[in-house]
Amino acid sequence: MTTTTDSPDAPARIYTAALAIIGNEILSGRTQDANLAHLAKTLNSWGVEMREVRVVPDIEAEIVAAVNALRGRYDYVFTTGGIGPTHDDITADSIARAFALPLVEHPDAIALLETYYPPGELTVVRRRMARVPQGADLIENPISKAPGFKIGNVFVLAGVPAIMRAQLHGARGFISGGRSVVSRTVSVLVGESRIAELLENAQGQFPDVDMGSYPFFRRNTVGTALVLRGREEARLDAAYDVLVGALSAAGIEGHPGELTD
Amino acid sequence: MTTTTDSPDAPARIYTAALAIIGNEILSGRTQDANLAHLAKTLNSWGVEMREVRVVPDIEAEIVAAVNALRGRYDYVFTTGGIGPTHDDITADSIARAFALPLVEHPDAIALLETYYPPGELTVVRRRMARVPQGADLIENPISKAPGFKIGNVFVLAGVPAIMRAQLHGARGFISGGRSVVSRTVSVLVGESRIAELLENAQGQFPDVDMGSYPFFRRNTVGTALVLRGREEARLDAAYDVLVGALSAAGIEGHPGELTD
Repeated sequence: MTTTTDSPDAPARIYTAALAIIGNEILSGRTQDANLAHLAKTLNSWGVEMREVRVVPDIEAEIVAAVNALRGRYDYVFTTGGIGPTHDDITADSIARAFALPLVEHPDAIALLETYYPPGELTVVRRRMARVPQGADLIENPISKAPGFKIGNVFVLAGVPAIMRAQLHGARGFISGGRSVVSRTVSVLVGESRIAELLENAQGQFPDVDMGSYPFFRRNTVGTALVLRGREEARLDAAYDVLVGALSAAGIEGHPGELTD
Repeated sequence: MTTTTDSPDAPARIYTAALAIIGNEILSGRTQDANLAHLAKTLNSWGVEMREVRVVPDIEAEIVAAVNALRGRYDYVFTTGGIGPTHDDITADSIARAFALPLVEHPDAIALLETYYPPGELTVVRRRMARVPQGADLIENPISKAPGFKIGNVFVLAGVPAIMRAQLHGARGFISGGRSVVSRTVSVLVGESRIAELLENAQGQFPDVDMGSYPFFRRNTVGTALVLRGREEARLDAAYDVLVGALSAAGIEGHPGELTD
């Protein structure tokens, strides 16, 4: 395990991540991505901040370009999709190409697949799922045995959400994180333009707290969720108090949390 | 209206698009994007193919870099998010910066907002929603009057799905399209590795038809949806028949369409 968490007083090393979602089915609208939100929240709980996402088609040159652009910029890059046994599963090939490494069968992956399929049924096609760039570490997957893998700072995971989640759990030991981003939310039953000025004033007083406003509709009324995000609980609490005070002074009731009903 | 649709016999001009989703709330996992799938399907019905998506934070330099990378590569670029009245709504500023144009109040947008708000209530904050890069065309939005806009080949739309959809409808007149991609799906109740070889053979016979395989789980059984996509109905039908024939020869029953139950 290389996992570390900075102490609250440590200088703020911020760990960053990006995601490349690989798949024509996402770009065509056939399939709704269900991995980004889960990955972003899980990584944040580990002290890693999601900074960029790209969705690219099942075309090797596109995958190579996206992964190479992202792996130089962020601490960790995750990919989802394209690691099954069919001809359109070209992620392992593409990652090997991105790293200029040969694609090889990982003996431990072969061993895992051998325990999964009945004797004699580990066909040529199924062996495709054991191919990784030379030197990659396997990421185990308790659901189907088909492993993901890690090469450099790139984590290659399945597209099927249940398998992706299991593999992400298996990737935990490779991830170092800093302090998590925490948030406070106050909701109001007025539109954004009613709170824009006081929100901007509060933001000006707390440049280290990221303040966002998100409109919602509830029982035919427009409302706005004001979300404060940052790494320092005390600063977040202070900013929250200032904001709720400003709302109150403007005659606007602030409801703690999200109004989802 | 500049809308054109190539005749079936015209040379295949393929129209492409990309989407930049702007918003910290998507990257943090707070909000699940609901615009990509709708946009991809709608554009396809207009004969435009979605090729790439990027999700970027509310940081001007990131938005500028993404939009400039995409607008040079694709026929159309769409952005969603960040066009409200609050300080974190920086999309209009960022697009103006990307095009090196001044940001100005569009008189027609001011007129629209004046019809929406009671007299005297079009505040400085609300006027922010009328700011566009100089020379932009407005995209009307019947729901809230806050318009999107088009500058060059970039379409700037709201993040709230209902408003985004209304604006997309308003953008129709600016979009030229070619032939839509159509699809045929056959589902089987076996895993991907059972059909990988025959699918690859079928793909080899029909290089102009894009064949994808997508695993699903149904009543504790694994299944696979085989999706054929292309622009020529006749070729798609021929490929479908070949694939279903190959499945049948392998003793695998093919169910037309998706098995969603």
